Amino acid sequence: MDLKNYLTSQRQRVEEALAQTLPPKQQHPTQLHEAMHYSVFAGGKRLRPILMMAACEAVGGDIENVLPAACAMEMIHTYSLIHDDLPAMDDDDLRRGQPTNHKVFGEATAILAGDALLTEAFVVLSAPSDSVQINDRTRREVIQLLARAAGAAGMVGGQIVDMEAEGMEQPDLATVDYIHAHKTGALILASIRAGALLGGANTEQYEALSRFGKLAGLAFQIADDILDITGDQEQLGKDIGSDQERGKATYPAVLGLSESIRRATELHQQALKALEPLADAAEPLRQISHYIINRSS
Amino acid sequence: MDLKNYLTSQRQRVEEALAQTLPPKQQHPTQLHEAMHYSVFAGGKRLRPILMMAACEAVGGDIENVLPAACAMEMIHTYSLIHDDLPAMDDDDLRRGQPTNHKVFGEATAILAGDALLTEAFVVLSAPSDSVQINDRTRREVIQLLARAAGAAGMVGGQIVDMEAEGMEQPDLATVDYIHAHKTGALILASIRAGALLGGANTEQYEALSRFGKLAGLAFQIADDILDITGDQEQLGKDIGSDQERGKATYPAVLGLSESIRRATELHQQALKALEPLADAAEPLRQISHYIINRSS
Repeated sequence: MDLKNYLTSQRQRVEEALAQTLPPKQQHPTQLHEAMHYSVFAGGKRLRPILMMAACEAVGGDIENVLPAACAMEMIHTYSLIHDDLPAMDDDDLRRGQPTNHKVFGEATAILAGDALLTEAFVVLSAPSDSVQINDRTRREVIQLLARAAGAAGMVGGQIVDMEAEGMEQPDLATVDYIHAHKTGALILASIRAGALLGGANTEQYEALSRFGKLAGLAFQIADDILDITGDQEQLGKDIGSDQERGKATYPAVLGLSESIRRATELHQQALKALEPLADAAEPLRQISHYIINRSS
Repeated sequence: MDLKNYLTSQRQRVEEALAQTLPPKQQHPTQLHEAMHYSVFAGGKRLRPILMMAACEAVGGDIENVLPAACAMEMIHTYSLIHDDLPAMDDDDLRRGQPTNHKVFGEATAILAGDALLTEAFVVLSAPSDSVQINDRTRREVIQLLARAAGAAGMVGGQIVDMEAEGMEQPDLATVDYIHAHKTGALILASIRAGALLGGANTEQYEALSRFGKLAGLAFQIADDILDITGDQEQLGKDIGSDQERGKATYPAVLGLSESIRRATELHQQALKALEPLADAAEPLRQISHYIINRSS
């Protein structure tokens, strides 16, 4: 397979589905809908939806069945970026080279656009569906997966510990592990698990993918931390060294650069090993994770 | 029935269920969980959960089956209050006589506590359940009801139009209707509909309660607007005349006080008429709505 073509075509599928799923920009109240569209269509890589689709493929499922959940996941991810960028949080003026939501629409609208994206994700996940393959039980389980991953025991919990850690003298490894497993790892894992569930995974397949999701999610995050030090600005989409400047709790800050690289490589090897039972069907997942890890080298 | 005892005992049931449902305050990260508890247990009337329970009773359902959804509704309501009070929104320092969430925990934690309460509501709604009466289809429908009522086509949509209208010279009736039907009416209606669904309503019962919910929700809001002018401060829990001072789009501002009173009374009469097919089982709903309307006189 040609990974570049694969990523491009999957990204297009997600973006078409998102365009059909979000309330139209012209719909009253337009200010709210424009702000939602602005951040959803601000040029994301659609990594989480693509991982969800690849996990579905890995168990021989039909990608059509995961598109609504893939859109919901991207809406949750986008809401988290809008709220993270707010003046009271990271106070960022730019995101992927564009002005952040509150810079364009004002703080109140940005808060509400984030709130609406999070809520609309659950509208999408619970909408009546024509699919005969996805029953109400599976849909409830997917809602449970995504809500847990996004909530206090997941992403929001990770975000608050991340903020607290910014003030620490020297964050310890347990804190960095907690932040990464929750702030970013939880949604990555939930994407892969939701893809498996909606693809009709059996228990063995679900467990293999869960193991892959945990290991790869952590490897991706260490790679991201490394990229903040070694990458170039274009690759990164933000200023080089910005984590260091902010005193962010990162792996290189706690473990040093070479130990971080060693750890990312080892976790990635273990993640690939977890995919062995899925044989060739997991090839897209393998190549996506190679691609994410190797951005940092 | 003695309404005061009824309201007290229902409120206690909701509060016990909430205490069991929210992640414990002592749980890591404590800052987040304390902020969530602070606003959830800040002395609300639990109007929406009590309406949900009363709608369930009105169709002969078992209240045990609505308690999780009643908690979820109160969590959504509480998140909306936390975000509404933020400096970028209404910038309120007090809520029910107590410092608002961001005054106690800071703005970043208040935003995240709101985000977490909204998300945890969907964790609760989609959690595995022992109830044999509530199947996964009904639970999916309840999630759909609550998410739609809280999202861009409901509460968040109403909130943004409310903010926009504060700047208007003279808001028109259509704008005031939109704000009230969405910002507050949608969650009231969804509470009543969820109670009906979870109580096992047939189509006729569901439609009667939906009609009641729409009419009563609007009547409650007009009564609230009137109370802002005629009530005393203790009854209101906020400063008298604060809507007027802010140039809020209210019914008295558009229709005048006496026409607003006439309209609230008429809507309330129609709401009670909608309950006729439910006979005696709807007595709690009738008395609750009398109580809400008559606070304003």
